[in-house]
Amino acid sequence: MTPEAAFIAALRGLASHPAARGLVDDCAVLEVGGETLILTHDMMVEGVHWLAGQDPADVAWKLLATNLSDLAAKGAEPIGVLLGYSLAEDNTRFAEGLGEALAHFAVPLLGGDTVSNPGAQTLGLTALGRATCRPVPSRSGARPGDSVWITGPVGAAMLGFEALSAGNTSTDTSVYRRPVPRLAEGRALAPLVTAMMDVSDGLLLDASRMAAASGATVSLDPALIPFPAGLPPQRARDAMAWGDDYELLFTLPPDASPPCPAHRIGSVLPAGPAALLLGGAPLSGQLGYEHG
Amino acid sequence: MTPEAAFIAALRGLASHPAARGLVDDCAVLEVGGETLILTHDMMVEGVHWLAGQDPADVAWKLLATNLSDLAAKGAEPIGVLLGYSLAEDNTRFAEGLGEALAHFAVPLLGGDTVSNPGAQTLGLTALGRATCRPVPSRSGARPGDSVWITGPVGAAMLGFEALSAGNTSTDTSVYRRPVPRLAEGRALAPLVTAMMDVSDGLLLDASRMAAASGATVSLDPALIPFPAGLPPQRARDAMAWGDDYELLFTLPPDASPPCPAHRIGSVLPAGPAALLLGGAPLSGQLGYEHG
Repeated sequence: MTPEAAFIAALRGLASHPAARGLVDDCAVLEVGGETLILTHDMMVEGVHWLAGQDPADVAWKLLATNLSDLAAKGAEPIGVLLGYSLAEDNTRFAEGLGEALAHFAVPLLGGDTVSNPGAQTLGLTALGRATCRPVPSRSGARPGDSVWITGPVGAAMLGFEALSAGNTSTDTSVYRRPVPRLAEGRALAPLVTAMMDVSDGLLLDASRMAAASGATVSLDPALIPFPAGLPPQRARDAMAWGDDYELLFTLPPDASPPCPAHRIGSVLPAGPAALLLGGAPLSGQLGYEHG
Repeated sequence: MTPEAAFIAALRGLASHPAARGLVDDCAVLEVGGETLILTHDMMVEGVHWLAGQDPADVAWKLLATNLSDLAAKGAEPIGVLLGYSLAEDNTRFAEGLGEALAHFAVPLLGGDTVSNPGAQTLGLTALGRATCRPVPSRSGARPGDSVWITGPVGAAMLGFEALSAGNTSTDTSVYRRPVPRLAEGRALAPLVTAMMDVSDGLLLDASRMAAASGATVSLDPALIPFPAGLPPQRARDAMAWGDDYELLFTLPPDASPPCPAHRIGSVLPAGPAALLLGGAPLSGQLGYEHG
């Protein structure tokens, strides 16, 4: 067991409140005052979650977008955010980018904290939303016979990251730098899906997590998985394992179709020896980006 | 202007939602459904907010306690917390301490995030509470003629910190290591106070902030300020400037008396040239611990 897995196992023992959903979901789901609140907190660390030297305005955008993507997976409407910020040399660009992102997604900044940090810059953001339908979708509702869908291609963020790392300015890197959470799609899908999550750690890893949480096997058809234009065919597997695309992965009952553009990429089977099949074959090894 | 002050000024421009209280209060105060939610997020950094080598169980306790202290200053009842955690060598003791603190304060862990961090360990915690009375107390309501009170002594955390730093095991350092937020006192006081805040950055600095937010001058009588037994008299000024005691500082209308043990330490005057008077003399220079 990795140190992270052991620590999270210990935390799960502390998270017995039903709102915590056993810490296996993207968000906490809390009943308060006649509303259902959706709460999430994601951190980002310089050199781990973004490239040293990246524009801090893009980092601010991504910090907000990744948290709003968790709300999108619940079909939630954002209410506001709290920022945890460790000071860097250039804080001005961060504030500018945060302002652009908050305005773009029409989300208010409600509070937070600022600290100095002698090491790597470390950021946290808590996003608060309100559920727009109940029950609130989870990862665990996929049932045998359901179809499996994704709202858009996987691999675009990988191509953007690689271009940015290489200093290649002829490629549009905005998908990596300024992802757009699928908030409208999440709200449209929430009343229909049997399970939903955002693809933050790679399609294969996240699909296997949905399968495990649902007590089922997810079978993906590689010929149906959408990729961005320009992805070399030999990079398909890399694209399926790369994260940061923030599309929504969801399952629908057999006779349902999605109310928004989406690609059918597989089906849900009864639980078999493997949680995930790709082209009928079980997958093992490193499926994607294990948070750390 | 320090980098932190400039950054916070930029954030204030983004925090126009009334729930943000202009980022000058300890918490955001948000109407949701029929409830008033109180939200706060504080970070802690190894080597900045705790001594390298301290027991991680104590660090976990303090992370929770400092955030709950912000809720206490609003008279709020805690609902739950989200944890932002960067992995360290020993994560087990942290989880144990967090479990003890959550159980002690009867607060559930609702979610969070875990990351790896090549630099100093950086922690964040978001605490969510519900207001028990409205209007929710702020820092800004102190009026000339009000009396100024504090729920307990200042300087005990300083003595604990110094003993811990010196490896002095004969002194009880628990006040520094495991502060106890004044949650019950905050709830009892909230309906009566004109202004309230927790003393996290030192009595002098925090009193001057309350004065500035209220557009008034706070006059403290040094002979009335409570200190812990064993504080050498020549350390009184240090104790007034030291933070981490997490007592509640509050003001009451002239004819009111507090419903819990507290010490009357001064009075509120019309705004004068100085925000803070100590023994009738204006104070300037470093008043306390400027967060950073």
